[in-house]
Amino acid sequence: MASQRQSQQIPQESPPRKPDPALQSLPIRAYLDQSVVPILLQGLAELAKERPSNPVEWLGHYLLKNSERS
Amino acid sequence: MASQRQSQQIPQESPPRKPDPALQSLPIRAYLDQSVVPILLQGLAELAKERPSNPVEWLGHYLLKNSERS
Repeated sequence: MASQRQSQQIPQESPPRKPDPALQSLPIRAYLDQSVVPILLQGLAELAKERPSNPVEWLGHYLLKNSERS
Repeated sequence: MASQRQSQQIPQESPPRKPDPALQSLPIRAYLDQSVVPILLQGLAELAKERPSNPVEWLGHYLLKNSERS
């Protein structure tokens, strides 16, 4: 008789943060709109005001700083 | 008569990296297109493939990692 491996629950490693299952199945544009676009628009608006010497790096730090709030 | 303050050059502190004077005078949309949009589009495309559990943070790190090349 075949062992019933399929019915066994394989324990998963618990990830540091669980990906939102709803986000995972969205089409690309909807995924981006719901994951990063709102904070990105804020960042781009501030970037355009500041116009720092290192825009890409500046925006990277902006996202990291604000990812805690998202 | 108005004083000719405009003709005096005020010495500026030298920044670590010099902002591109051409970028500084652009309208907002053109500024963003020329400073961060190309690398941002790459990052968003990769983000939509990866769909990590922390999208904002992920994109922030992506920009920092790739800012060296910009």
